[in-house]
Amino acid sequence: MFALDPQLANDTIVIGDLELSRVLLMNDKNYPWIILVPRIEQAVEVFQLSESQQRELTAESALIAQVMYRHFSADKMNVAALGNVVAQLHVHHIVRFKSDLCWPKPVWGVCAPVQYTRGESAAMVDTLRVLLTPMGLLL
Amino acid sequence: MFALDPQLANDTIVIGDLELSRVLLMNDKNYPWIILVPRIEQAVEVFQLSESQQRELTAESALIAQVMYRHFSADKMNVAALGNVVAQLHVHHIVRFKSDLCWPKPVWGVCAPVQYTRGESAAMVDTLRVLLTPMGLLL
Repeated sequence: MFALDPQLANDTIVIGDLELSRVLLMNDKNYPWIILVPRIEQAVEVFQLSESQQRELTAESALIAQVMYRHFSADKMNVAALGNVVAQLHVHHIVRFKSDLCWPKPVWGVCAPVQYTRGESAAMVDTLRVLLTPMGLLL
Repeated sequence: MFALDPQLANDTIVIGDLELSRVLLMNDKNYPWIILVPRIEQAVEVFQLSESQQRELTAESALIAQVMYRHFSADKMNVAALGNVVAQLHVHHIVRFKSDLCWPKPVWGVCAPVQYTRGESAAMVDTLRVLLTPMGLLL
């Protein structure tokens, strides 16, 4: 049984599910930031997934990165599976702008997150659902 | 024509080539750290690769991560495509230990790199070539 890590649940808002992964909005309005969590029990490293799961994660990651890059006119996407704090396998997709708070540094541990208001996060989730539903997102 | 970015060339030592990617050792002895650079001209984002190139990069990334994880008895692998400073597409694979200098923070911009001596880097490159040659590494 897959269960989302409690800290990931606390730090994010659920957008929906792709075929393999739960799609989460990171609650940090400094950057549009989506986390993909493959719904595979006890997965920690990408190489622990089956080959077909790895291919699906790659496809979902590329989809998310491309959709965000285009919609937000990103200068760069940062895509990363770190997991030093939360072990459950999760892949960050962060839209970076040359004008953002942390540029050109990576965001983790450098710039303090700024939470969305409820209205702001609801609007962002709606926007991302509109973008991702034609790509196979299920609510 | 593919050419390695000059800053990547300056910061790393060449280990060899896999089918898609050049395999580089980051010159930072704080952690075993391999960078994969797909030999595709002007690639910046993973989603700009063809689907078959994305699948190959996923396979090479999983191979590198798994081999390093096992050989060095990692606590965690950090795998990331950032590219805020060097645009050329490159994917970090960093062996992390709970005892390392930066744990649990990500390494970039947090802990100053410590260069290998020539003998140390030659020994590490030899070790990685022995591990990766049976996996298809060409020198």
